[in-house]
Amino acid sequence: MIKPAVPKGTRDFSPVQVNRRNYIVEIIKKTFIKYGFQPIETPSMENLSTLTGKYGDEGDQLLFKILKNGDFTEKIKTPDDYKKLAFEICEKGLRYDLTVPFARYVVMNRNEIAFPFKRYQIQPVWRGDRPQKGRYQEFWQCDADVVGSDSLLNEVELVQMLDEVYNELGFGVTILLNNRKILSGIAEVANVGDKMMSMTIAIDKLDKIGIEGVRNEMIANGIAAESCAIIESILQAQTLEELKPLLSKSEIGNKGIEELETVFKYLSKVKIKQTVKIDPTLARGLSYYTGAIFEVKANDVSMGSINGGGRYDDLTGLFGMPNVSGVGISFGLDRIYDVMTELGLFPASTDKVTQYLIGTFDDACFDFGFDLLQKMRAAGKSVELYPVPAKPVKFLNYANARQIPNVIIIGENEMQTGQLMVKEMLVGGQMAMSVEELLG
Amino acid sequence: MIKPAVPKGTRDFSPVQVNRRNYIVEIIKKTFIKYGFQPIETPSMENLSTLTGKYGDEGDQLLFKILKNGDFTEKIKTPDDYKKLAFEICEKGLRYDLTVPFARYVVMNRNEIAFPFKRYQIQPVWRGDRPQKGRYQEFWQCDADVVGSDSLLNEVELVQMLDEVYNELGFGVTILLNNRKILSGIAEVANVGDKMMSMTIAIDKLDKIGIEGVRNEMIANGIAAESCAIIESILQAQTLEELKPLLSKSEIGNKGIEELETVFKYLSKVKIKQTVKIDPTLARGLSYYTGAIFEVKANDVSMGSINGGGRYDDLTGLFGMPNVSGVGISFGLDRIYDVMTELGLFPASTDKVTQYLIGTFDDACFDFGFDLLQKMRAAGKSVELYPVPAKPVKFLNYANARQIPNVIIIGENEMQTGQLMVKEMLVGGQMAMSVEELLG
Repeated sequence: MIKPAVPKGTRDFSPVQVNRRNYIVEIIKKTFIKYGFQPIETPSMENLSTLTGKYGDEGDQLLFKILKNGDFTEKIKTPDDYKKLAFEICEKGLRYDLTVPFARYVVMNRNEIAFPFKRYQIQPVWRGDRPQKGRYQEFWQCDADVVGSDSLLNEVELVQMLDEVYNELGFGVTILLNNRKILSGIAEVANVGDKMMSMTIAIDKLDKIGIEGVRNEMIANGIAAESCAIIESILQAQTLEELKPLLSKSEIGNKGIEELETVFKYLSKVKIKQTVKIDPTLARGLSYYTGAIFEVKANDVSMGSINGGGRYDDLTGLFGMPNVSGVGISFGLDRIYDVMTELGLFPASTDKVTQYLIGTFDDACFDFGFDLLQKMRAAGKSVELYPVPAKPVKFLNYANARQIPNVIIIGENEMQTGQLMVKEMLVGGQMAMSVEELLG
Repeated sequence: MIKPAVPKGTRDFSPVQVNRRNYIVEIIKKTFIKYGFQPIETPSMENLSTLTGKYGDEGDQLLFKILKNGDFTEKIKTPDDYKKLAFEICEKGLRYDLTVPFARYVVMNRNEIAFPFKRYQIQPVWRGDRPQKGRYQEFWQCDADVVGSDSLLNEVELVQMLDEVYNELGFGVTILLNNRKILSGIAEVANVGDKMMSMTIAIDKLDKIGIEGVRNEMIANGIAAESCAIIESILQAQTLEELKPLLSKSEIGNKGIEELETVFKYLSKVKIKQTVKIDPTLARGLSYYTGAIFEVKANDVSMGSINGGGRYDDLTGLFGMPNVSGVGISFGLDRIYDVMTELGLFPASTDKVTQYLIGTFDDACFDFGFDLLQKMRAAGKSVELYPVPAKPVKFLNYANARQIPNVIIIGENEMQTGQLMVKEMLVGGQMAMSVEELLG
């Protein structure tokens, strides 16, 4: 007998955990709906042709691929190249994020959709990453995207939504904003336009490898020391005002600044409680962002990014529908859960528990208890009947383990007098109550 | 460019569909919670060692297996037997139902769980079946199980839950009950104790192949014509009263009758609105049922079984924890959805729509609209701002397509007078309203 286990990087969720996760999801969902987003769901499995080539070579390797049903061996001619072979014996894979399936959905349903289309989607995704703290092979994303509109109102509302969700969850975050056009501007001003990707990839690692690490990587990728110095000086900028003169010579850089100014102009008209600031070093790995880039970090817990997002202009183009601009954010449910746990922020009411347990001594009491159970449920009470007549220690222990606060004990005496004994498990007291009182 | 598609047997769900599916799920969930069930969730992927051998040979073939990440080709020595090879190059599979993962969960968490453990679980499962009407490769199960209690109260409450869910969903069903012990009794009385499985498998097909088909299959499996005649006569029984004398010579048969009598005794004390009746031909494919067997069929739609369930005594034994009796039911969300759609039972309120769209003519109006948007949202209104200033035809068409009932139009005139024009899209009228009136 093999000891039962779950696959590495995956988790079971206990009742307490499910209820707490749902608490987070409901707050996110409510906010999505408030801002006019509509739900869609897509299949867990996608054709590999939909998924591959969208997440880089590394992403292709991290896709979970599903073996064809039936005889797949006829394809095995060249078992020497396993990477290639995998795509021959597998047709489907598990979705890697919610954005690419959404783009596919939009293209397939373009004739039924009213644009701008604001959709939300809350589903698990799967990646064959090495599991570590805050990183799982199965994890949940809560995405909101608007496609078919390049209005910056969308960026503004996405920031409002981030603000409202974290306010309601009850912890402080910093919402970082950047714009891909600012990164292009930096590359232009530093005269490394042709090495923009290398520059961006290096800058993206600033948090992990420090400014010297970034410089070394840029130099290793053939960026001149002089250019590095310019880039480093620009990355010091903390505000749009500081950034503006540094990028004044770049048209695209100015455009990026202008877009962020517009976003901040509207944000200043609404009350944002969380910290929002620009971060010219923010690039995020995904290369499909073309405008705004978002990232959220918890202020008081070391947890990496709990939210990402940005604007992409070409995503549906991958499936044959060009010129549809989109922008979206993605909440990382699992990391938010970890932050909430670390900060002890789940309200006690989240752990839903049954309020009454009826315990009985013998068959006659059990039948009496069964009738009481029906009456109490009809009266809207949260109540269970211990499923067999038993010694009190049995059902009292059960109530304790389940944290059920009240146990109604029914013996011969109680049935005759109509006064039932109610044991208050948390306080330790007990009192006599009539059926009518219990229904009240 | 490949035309984008979803894998066969899987589906995208549009906003309307997601909202309607959630409507069903919420009713089921509410009922589960009312009866004291607690939620758990398990990973989509399980180790193949957890899944294989639980669903028969056919089931093993229908499991979706996930290719190992990294180089899997070293295992390819004998590519001639693809069924065996599949289990060498794959370690994980997608869950096939929620019952086996639940049994694994119980065994792994036995020290933390208070028994009897009443859990519910609402998640998708995957089977490589040939897709057809009402049958998908990815579909949702809504399961409630009690383990660690052999009390028949559990069977009674499961029937109450079935009744309440279908009452609230609003369509008539027939809840069929049987007991594996009655099938054993039939086999004993007909003197085919050693061919009980063949008999059961044949009987299970009664709906599809008729009584002659059943007889032919039994005879083909070596059951004597005389025994077949006895079996057929017993299967005619429509009630427990008719069945009782026919099984009186079988001890196990009597036990099965007695159990069903107890269940009906308690059911008679509560008000069950749906039809509940016994069906001695009900076997259901899964061989792990040992006591009660449940099945639910919609009365007015031809859709096969929309609910299954039963009692199993040995399920956790598969993972090394013997002697834990369990009983459960499983709602088939997708089929219930199809029934509700066919009968037109979704209330209009299920299709959540935004109530107001603000449309603006130019930048100044847009800023006015943005402020109005904030005020209306703060007042709890469901409202969106068309994301750019535009000609009325643009935002009126959008409101139409989204079925948003009210459009607030903001032009220069409106800003000056403070009287905004509100177009009622469904009625076709329009009226002037002040900001204060809109917030009221």
